[in-house]
Amino acid sequence: MYDFEGDADNGELSFYSGDVLTIIRQDIGDGWWEARNAQGEQGLVPETYVEIMSSVEEWDDDWDSDDGEGSSNSTVGTPGGQDLQGQGNFGLAAPRREGKQLSPSAEMSKYGTVKSSFNRFSTFAKTGGEAFLMGEVDKNVPESDRIRIIETAEGPRWYCPDSQRYTCSVASPKKESKMKGLKSYIAYQLTPSFSNIQVSRRYKHFDWLHGQLESKFACIPVAPLPDKQVTGRYEEDFVQERMKFLQMWVDRLVRHPVISRSEVFLHFLTCTDERKWKQGKRKAEKDEYQGGKFFLTLSAPQQALDMRDVDAKMELFCKFVMNMTENVKQLNAVMHDYSKKQMGPFKREYTKIGTSFKQLAMTFNIDTTESSKQLTAAIDHTGDAYNEIGNMFERQPPSDAYPLMDSLHEYKGILQTYPDVLKVHEGATGKAKDCLKAQEEGKMTEAEVNKVLARADTISYGTLAEMNNFQTERVKDFKLMMQLYLRSQIKFYQDMTKKLEDALGHYDSIQTPS
Amino acid sequence: MYDFEGDADNGELSFYSGDVLTIIRQDIGDGWWEARNAQGEQGLVPETYVEIMSSVEEWDDDWDSDDGEGSSNSTVGTPGGQDLQGQGNFGLAAPRREGKQLSPSAEMSKYGTVKSSFNRFSTFAKTGGEAFLMGEVDKNVPESDRIRIIETAEGPRWYCPDSQRYTCSVASPKKESKMKGLKSYIAYQLTPSFSNIQVSRRYKHFDWLHGQLESKFACIPVAPLPDKQVTGRYEEDFVQERMKFLQMWVDRLVRHPVISRSEVFLHFLTCTDERKWKQGKRKAEKDEYQGGKFFLTLSAPQQALDMRDVDAKMELFCKFVMNMTENVKQLNAVMHDYSKKQMGPFKREYTKIGTSFKQLAMTFNIDTTESSKQLTAAIDHTGDAYNEIGNMFERQPPSDAYPLMDSLHEYKGILQTYPDVLKVHEGATGKAKDCLKAQEEGKMTEAEVNKVLARADTISYGTLAEMNNFQTERVKDFKLMMQLYLRSQIKFYQDMTKKLEDALGHYDSIQTPS
Repeated sequence: MYDFEGDADNGELSFYSGDVLTIIRQDIGDGWWEARNAQGEQGLVPETYVEIMSSVEEWDDDWDSDDGEGSSNSTVGTPGGQDLQGQGNFGLAAPRREGKQLSPSAEMSKYGTVKSSFNRFSTFAKTGGEAFLMGEVDKNVPESDRIRIIETAEGPRWYCPDSQRYTCSVASPKKESKMKGLKSYIAYQLTPSFSNIQVSRRYKHFDWLHGQLESKFACIPVAPLPDKQVTGRYEEDFVQERMKFLQMWVDRLVRHPVISRSEVFLHFLTCTDERKWKQGKRKAEKDEYQGGKFFLTLSAPQQALDMRDVDAKMELFCKFVMNMTENVKQLNAVMHDYSKKQMGPFKREYTKIGTSFKQLAMTFNIDTTESSKQLTAAIDHTGDAYNEIGNMFERQPPSDAYPLMDSLHEYKGILQTYPDVLKVHEGATGKAKDCLKAQEEGKMTEAEVNKVLARADTISYGTLAEMNNFQTERVKDFKLMMQLYLRSQIKFYQDMTKKLEDALGHYDSIQTPS
Repeated sequence: MYDFEGDADNGELSFYSGDVLTIIRQDIGDGWWEARNAQGEQGLVPETYVEIMSSVEEWDDDWDSDDGEGSSNSTVGTPGGQDLQGQGNFGLAAPRREGKQLSPSAEMSKYGTVKSSFNRFSTFAKTGGEAFLMGEVDKNVPESDRIRIIETAEGPRWYCPDSQRYTCSVASPKKESKMKGLKSYIAYQLTPSFSNIQVSRRYKHFDWLHGQLESKFACIPVAPLPDKQVTGRYEEDFVQERMKFLQMWVDRLVRHPVISRSEVFLHFLTCTDERKWKQGKRKAEKDEYQGGKFFLTLSAPQQALDMRDVDAKMELFCKFVMNMTENVKQLNAVMHDYSKKQMGPFKREYTKIGTSFKQLAMTFNIDTTESSKQLTAAIDHTGDAYNEIGNMFERQPPSDAYPLMDSLHEYKGILQTYPDVLKVHEGATGKAKDCLKAQEEGKMTEAEVNKVLARADTISYGTLAEMNNFQTERVKDFKLMMQLYLRSQIKFYQDMTKKLEDALGHYDSIQTPS
């Protein structure tokens, strides 16, 4: 993602933004991975400078070994699971992965250089989105499936009564095994606040849910799951780290006014019975209001939208997403660099000062007169204080830079998925404009076109409601992120000041001859 | 003095501790000089990593052009003044400079590797020190010239009644000229607290005084004067910097119980009449109690000293001086490095954070809803705060590292002159031991030897009194240095905390939708 000038003496591997590296080891620790470049050179690379493009190893090797499906041809003992893509039980998984392998330059639009898959619009067309726009689908959506959009002073918004808000904890990861211990995995315990009943979910369940949400909610960017990782999967740190990101991921979904109340999400959060789980799973996979057809479920305001106004809003938002993508990458890189500096050079600088003071105190210790002894003790204590400040610098990033980087990482994921969502809208309005042209050419009637425009408005209303939701969430999130970051920085410098004040206090009592 | 790994791309010149470089330019600024190594390579070197060994250019080019002496063969217009060494009006200057060119390895003793001239003992012998020890000089010292040493719980000390303490300010540097403006120089105004009468002194007067003090007080290390510098001599910064160091130098002398009351020093501080100045100057230069004969003026306690006890004390103190010399160099190098880091990488790190926040705010500015605008303003303000913190890091060294480095520099000078003083004592006790041996061999009578031993004790008393004075001053000085350093550091981190608290405050008022 970024240029990295590695220190070859320290075994680091240099690379440029855009280089493709093969990751050899991910369990080095301290934010380093081992990688090999195209020239076959190996070395350490900072993990936040690279991004996993695609790998069959991303998939749990026990992917298809429970839930009954495919258990007759279990791949136990087949690491990597290359033979799994074609199984089709989690249908969307394969096309999604193929989508991510598309080159960004293969299909470009005004959404520009944001790297992502650009096949959502074709999916939209394939899955019946175009059919929705052209009125070729029925609209007998049951009331329970309907999603309301309301007009507010700040534009269209998802309707969500406060009474329906809830939270959900992700906790207590447990190592479980099956097939007489041949296979083991980690199960996380989820407890929604509305039921207080705990359900046990594995990473693959999250992954299935993610696929379902992405397929269904055509105008809602769903944050990617935390990165998959094969090596060291059961190590305590890794499990805790993954759990933290799963909690963040769940937090965002339970806050979402549409997703939080969707049947598939509630099924995921509440189902404890294995038979019912499979039923609900199959039902979700057969959901007829997925993709383009999702717009059938929207109850948008009747008022027609001004197409130029909508276009202008989309253009601005698109710019926002692209710029914010860059800002988030930049800030993340700066924070990564800052935390490396804190743990390395900053710590070293203060430790060097501490060591110099302590060495001076060792010499001063030769003079055993009372006032000299007091000074020696005070300087030695100052040396300790600077050494401790050095250690504070080393311990600080998990309190300030890392949490900020975690949140930025989450936003990076959301922003990456946004171009897909915007392309759905772009495709729909493009089609609507085609229809207006067709009307001018006498190929469509005004009544037909008005119906198309109304349906295009529904897509616009949904997209705008989600954009407004994104902005509201962004303001809340960044307010909190900045507050947490600044509070932690303030605490850090206050603690440092306290250490120095304590050190200074040791000099007050030194009795020097007049 | 230290290894320096320069960045050749930045035009820096690498060298090792001990390398001899030729300084080409001293007016580069920011602590850099331009130098050439033995291989003819040129580049920038950090001035605190090197020390001026010897140079004819150290001498003011108007050295002998006033005070009437030698004015008939004035060297106006002869820069460098290579022809000045033999003029002898400031007799001690020449041998002192020659002394500094002696290789440290030429004459080694237990004072080991401390680099300095080692010809003091021979000077001591030459100037009548050995004669003093052997009783070949009369002792009719007038009462007014007598210096008392008293025994205290912490050993022998110079007697100095509090009533005789005073201070002296060095201020108001004025550019003056003579010979119809052909020559100009800076005169500093000195005002002793006991008279409150201002006297005007040039650097060359300070240099003359320094030479007199060094020649006279055989057991007292006199701090070197601040470095001489030819280029940019009248620039405001240089003058202020030199004045600061002259003030430090005078401060140390007025605090010294012996020097502060010496005739030559008081003459320097008080004489306003040009004719009397020359008289006093000549009198000081002809002072018969200089060098070894200085010990004639000491009124030491009668009690005989235990030679082994004195030897042990000297050995320990010698170790102290050597270790402290290393500590001071080390701490100075660390502080130099720390201040460079503060002004460079530390500042850059905080500026990078500030810039990233401000760039994020620029993107967020696209969303003009009220709560977003409030967040944007807060983040922009946080960006400003980090930029200001970056600037604070850049401005900080003059408040903490530099004052500490100035004091360390002064101590480095004092410690460098100490081996000379200790060698005087070593020579005296060595001679006393020779006499004891001569007594055993029947070559000297017990009465003769006892007189020698009593006179050796006088030298020991003087040396011990000065050592105790040094240690008392050291405790006072380092207490103050550390307090100033820590207070400045505390203020710095408090100011930083305030900036961050102010930034944090901007988030509290952001109204986010529930």
